[in-house]
Amino acid sequence: MSNPHTSLTLPNPLPLDSGQALACVEMAYETYGTLNADKSNAILICHALTGDQYVASTHPITGKPGWWERMVGPGKPIDTDRFHVICANVIGSCLGSTGPQSPASDGEPYAMRFPVITIRDMVRGLVAMLDAMGIAQLHTVVGGSMGGMQALSLAANWPDRAGRVLAIATTARHSAQNIAFHEVGRQAIMADPHWCGGDYYGEESAPDAGLAVARMAAHITYLSEEGLTEKFGRRLQDRDAKTFGFDADFQVESYLRYQGSGFTRRFDANSYLYITRAMDYFDIAEEHGGTLAKAFAGTPARFCLVSFDSDWLYPTAESRHVVHALNAAGAPVSFVELSAPFGHDSFLLDVPALDRVVKGFLDG
Amino acid sequence: MSNPHTSLTLPNPLPLDSGQALACVEMAYETYGTLNADKSNAILICHALTGDQYVASTHPITGKPGWWERMVGPGKPIDTDRFHVICANVIGSCLGSTGPQSPASDGEPYAMRFPVITIRDMVRGLVAMLDAMGIAQLHTVVGGSMGGMQALSLAANWPDRAGRVLAIATTARHSAQNIAFHEVGRQAIMADPHWCGGDYYGEESAPDAGLAVARMAAHITYLSEEGLTEKFGRRLQDRDAKTFGFDADFQVESYLRYQGSGFTRRFDANSYLYITRAMDYFDIAEEHGGTLAKAFAGTPARFCLVSFDSDWLYPTAESRHVVHALNAAGAPVSFVELSAPFGHDSFLLDVPALDRVVKGFLDG
Repeated sequence: MSNPHTSLTLPNPLPLDSGQALACVEMAYETYGTLNADKSNAILICHALTGDQYVASTHPITGKPGWWERMVGPGKPIDTDRFHVICANVIGSCLGSTGPQSPASDGEPYAMRFPVITIRDMVRGLVAMLDAMGIAQLHTVVGGSMGGMQALSLAANWPDRAGRVLAIATTARHSAQNIAFHEVGRQAIMADPHWCGGDYYGEESAPDAGLAVARMAAHITYLSEEGLTEKFGRRLQDRDAKTFGFDADFQVESYLRYQGSGFTRRFDANSYLYITRAMDYFDIAEEHGGTLAKAFAGTPARFCLVSFDSDWLYPTAESRHVVHALNAAGAPVSFVELSAPFGHDSFLLDVPALDRVVKGFLDG
Repeated sequence: MSNPHTSLTLPNPLPLDSGQALACVEMAYETYGTLNADKSNAILICHALTGDQYVASTHPITGKPGWWERMVGPGKPIDTDRFHVICANVIGSCLGSTGPQSPASDGEPYAMRFPVITIRDMVRGLVAMLDAMGIAQLHTVVGGSMGGMQALSLAANWPDRAGRVLAIATTARHSAQNIAFHEVGRQAIMADPHWCGGDYYGEESAPDAGLAVARMAAHITYLSEEGLTEKFGRRLQDRDAKTFGFDADFQVESYLRYQGSGFTRRFDANSYLYITRAMDYFDIAEEHGGTLAKAFAGTPARFCLVSFDSDWLYPTAESRHVVHALNAAGAPVSFVELSAPFGHDSFLLDVPALDRVVKGFLDG
């Protein structure tokens, strides 16, 4: 199977937190801007749960612009005239890096034989990719949401690999509520008879209905109650009165259905299972003897944490928890809670204050 | 089909907001305490989405105690030594009142031929039942969550039928976020191939998997983030370490799965579709020219509204919105926000302050 994405193959098997190892790991990535002679201007952008490496270039399946074009490009806050920006698809995902749909040693897709991975395993893959690229230290590692988890994990476990760490709308551990929402999504996928225990590759049907429900449930958590009210309220969809039926009478229903069905065209259900599992397992303190400050002890990096006041998925208290640990570890850290109406998704949307914070942190 | 529940048949067809009418409506109900000679001591308790008439008696399917035994009984806040308490299964539900699984005129279950109903239609059924019982005016109508919607709807549309109105953890309209969560549940049910367009009665399988996912998603909204953290946190379920698999490693996963599967044994998937639809359609102001105060103009009833500080499904602002409308309508109203850690479900749980408020309002 040829990989239609730009990628490199890691030279060594990747050891995993489970004790297993992943052989022949493919890392699919995109880069923007030019790496300077001493390789000191590289910025690694880590993507979120359903994100990918197409941070500032057209998505090959949807044809849509990159997911962070507003932030990354010439003259933009993450300025590709100045920085060499790298973004790779995480292992477990489905845009060219090794994941459940990749062939195992027997040539058949791993499906559910793929090992359960962690956020640290994802970062281990990214670090091995940086090794292969000859990049010893990043100027900055940046990420929002699950990308922020990776940025924090890199700082905690490979402290010499990034001079600066910018973690946006994220947390150092998944809460019971976070796990609960993910479990609903996984159960929706696994309840879909087309899931077939994960062995649906090459079959006529994939578990699209289950995956769409999972996406719909998750999508609500990405938005704020206020944002939903402002955007949709109780407005009806292309009709003057309720139909007294089960069609999408309300705009918010129509929107959610669209989000669900669109998602299934670009994402793999098994990848959704594996990546949500990795996020639920995420707890940096637990990896470091139960104390978050210990995870960051002696880190030479500078940190910037950003939260959004309307984000109820990873609320400000989660960022503050990280900041307190960094303070206890004596690490230089700046922290700002930005006001934005878009909930968790604020990090992806038009929030000029975020642009200023990002630019300021990279310039400073 | 004989009805194993206590019930009465309404003498006339029930007109519905859709313009349709429902013939031969069965109302299944339970009563507690004795109706006095002038029939002035009746309290109607309205149940929530997945509730039923077994408010203070053993549930015939689960064998569990009534859902509000802590509140209703001899010497309890709703004192059955003093009051005649009535609780009826709402139309559209599945515990003996007419709903999607009831036979239509052709003898076959309605399934999706059942008309889409509204909260006002449910109350219309309850009022017709009270007529049949010869109860002209209730001492009090009480309800939490969807039960509170019915209490408010009765006050707005049949203002002479209740002297007091006690509405707990509720709202006068469903928000975009409320609708969104319900739509996820409906899509989960409809995506289940055993749903078969609603025609699963008498078949070997019902859409249990979809209904369980719907229940799981909804259940998260009934609890608070803080409550989930306190109750489960990131604690593992009967194991010392993560399994690196997709079993329920975390207690919160195990709990949600249990909630989902238990629910399917006592509830009908089509009823879930119809009742969530009724709730999403709910907007008392819209029914009364767009102004909530108009809905309550000239009401002779006394009101008491109760909200909980950890309820993010129907937050305090929604109760306050009702209180402002009642103030504008000149109705006597008391309002209290109680502090309780259990989220929306607080109205069902051990919150002694709620007991005092309920008792005080009935005594006062």
